[in-house]
Amino acid sequence: MDGGSSHHARPNPGLSAGKRVPVYSAAQLIEKQQLKWNSVKEKPYPAMYSSYFGGIILDPSMMVLPIDDHMVHRGHGVFDTAVILNGYLYELDTHLDRFLNSASKAKISSPFPKETLKSILIQTTAASKCRRGSLRYWLSAGPGDFLLSSSGCPEPAFYAVVIADNFSQRKEGVKVVTATTPMKPPIFATMKNVNYLPNVLAIIEAEEKGAFASVWVDDNGHIAEGPNVNVAFISNKKELLLPTFDNILTGCTAKRLLALAPKLVEKGLLKGVETRNITVDEAKNSAEMMYVGSTLPLLPIIEWDGKPVGNGKVGELTLALSDLLWDDMIAGPERIFVPYEDDDALQQSKL
Amino acid sequence: MDGGSSHHARPNPGLSAGKRVPVYSAAQLIEKQQLKWNSVKEKPYPAMYSSYFGGIILDPSMMVLPIDDHMVHRGHGVFDTAVILNGYLYELDTHLDRFLNSASKAKISSPFPKETLKSILIQTTAASKCRRGSLRYWLSAGPGDFLLSSSGCPEPAFYAVVIADNFSQRKEGVKVVTATTPMKPPIFATMKNVNYLPNVLAIIEAEEKGAFASVWVDDNGHIAEGPNVNVAFISNKKELLLPTFDNILTGCTAKRLLALAPKLVEKGLLKGVETRNITVDEAKNSAEMMYVGSTLPLLPIIEWDGKPVGNGKVGELTLALSDLLWDDMIAGPERIFVPYEDDDALQQSKL
Repeated sequence: MDGGSSHHARPNPGLSAGKRVPVYSAAQLIEKQQLKWNSVKEKPYPAMYSSYFGGIILDPSMMVLPIDDHMVHRGHGVFDTAVILNGYLYELDTHLDRFLNSASKAKISSPFPKETLKSILIQTTAASKCRRGSLRYWLSAGPGDFLLSSSGCPEPAFYAVVIADNFSQRKEGVKVVTATTPMKPPIFATMKNVNYLPNVLAIIEAEEKGAFASVWVDDNGHIAEGPNVNVAFISNKKELLLPTFDNILTGCTAKRLLALAPKLVEKGLLKGVETRNITVDEAKNSAEMMYVGSTLPLLPIIEWDGKPVGNGKVGELTLALSDLLWDDMIAGPERIFVPYEDDDALQQSKL
Repeated sequence: MDGGSSHHARPNPGLSAGKRVPVYSAAQLIEKQQLKWNSVKEKPYPAMYSSYFGGIILDPSMMVLPIDDHMVHRGHGVFDTAVILNGYLYELDTHLDRFLNSASKAKISSPFPKETLKSILIQTTAASKCRRGSLRYWLSAGPGDFLLSSSGCPEPAFYAVVIADNFSQRKEGVKVVTATTPMKPPIFATMKNVNYLPNVLAIIEAEEKGAFASVWVDDNGHIAEGPNVNVAFISNKKELLLPTFDNILTGCTAKRLLALAPKLVEKGLLKGVETRNITVDEAKNSAEMMYVGSTLPLLPIIEWDGKPVGNGKVGELTLALSDLLWDDMIAGPERIFVPYEDDDALQQSKL
């Protein structure tokens, strides 16, 4: 039985039609990659860290991870981010806490304690020389044996990339649509894992409709979130309203907004600040609407499903809240100094 | 506003506590990797293909993909598989059709037409010299800019890996449990994409309970599927029953089982073959139960949620069906000859 015979097997038209696929050595691949990147004026990413390699990589040709990493082929990885602004990392601790919480829910352990992760992220940012952009990092179940269970993945992996981005405060309004792509079940929506295909299809759907992004509404008819940002509203009574975080990701910037917004209540600009269930009807009758996310930090929304939000113009309270967040990013207490080498030299020269 | 001042920023305990992270050049990393793999007796995977590299890689140190690939950080990729048995690829066309269908649903285009994908897969298998194992392949939206939308990913990517595995027909029974991890919405369950975190957590849940794997039951109380296999039952009336494929992945091996099983009806061993909704009660009262998947091809299930299935022994009809599938894998018409180099030389010497 176990010998097999060829006479029943199909002919192989693909092979005769196709051309010969070359086999490359590692040295040839590195040379090919370096030739390619040397011809590119600006490198795509100034630095990567990989626990698999045990160090920082500045050469884009090795900003890679193993194909058998459980994050690659099974989506068994979590991620988080932090903004780099004027040479400081903003809210890194808050993001790292959420990151480790996501990892725990996804049954991924960390190869390092939090303080070491933090040190690696700061050193990677310093090595990148990047002073404005974002830092993205992942914990993965690690390389293994391609099986579904991660029991064959001996070591979890930690990766980080610095992404240069000359972002600034967003003051122009955008259009949004309600998503028809289904939302993830709450357990998966509340942990920041790389299973973002629903989010990707939701933003592609919006782009196809000429919108910037989409808004998910849950099965109960309550506002949920955008594809990778939170949403917030200013009611007609001048309250700042955000959906509760029960079934959606707890946005770090959204939390910070909730912490800072009472300053506008003190000034008499806002009447209140609240997180609660928000129906579509209530949301569509808001005075102002905005996306909330770390690199925005607030993005005014002026049109939703083809109809103006409020008076159809960028909201004044949205901009006031945006200023509060931006000031906090620029000069607030949640920033960590990045010891770039130039700074090191500068500091040492002062000793 | 945009200058930033450091006097409010937090001190940086992580860095002073942590040790210095090394910065590696590409050459150093390749050397490190090759040293590591040279010390390993058996290479983990005999061959990989990457459209990003434009060729086949036999050196495990470069079996990698870019960290900015949309499949890695957003799960924007689909995959499929095919068994390699006795130097033949089994049901490659069926799997490739499903693969391209998954890609279309995930809004991923292919860098090559189907016949070229097929030729590349056959050549990669030939280059691997592997005669028993499996071939896994992925279509990804490709490397890009780390944004959520794939509009910044200029070229989709095609990757494939040959995984050596001395698998054989499974004749021992296993235990299963009903999954408590939520199922994916139908649109995502019916396309084979890499967002497998629910599947991973479902199998980890089963392993933690001492079971081999789990079974999903949908919101209507109907049997759905296993974490990466289909399930099938033999009723007390000796019918082969499979759940309909409306909300679950259309298994290629399950489809082949449905095509071959009427042979056992002709022989009078089975009374019928049907796909329909199956309630948990009906399923738990089955005479036999099995998993269906390409490398099994059938795996008898003898215990479910702590209670015996049927008489608690491996089912005779399960084994008869397993033989049907195994014979088809060994000598059936759905096999494609792989032109390994030795075979090429052998054939040329015969001319």
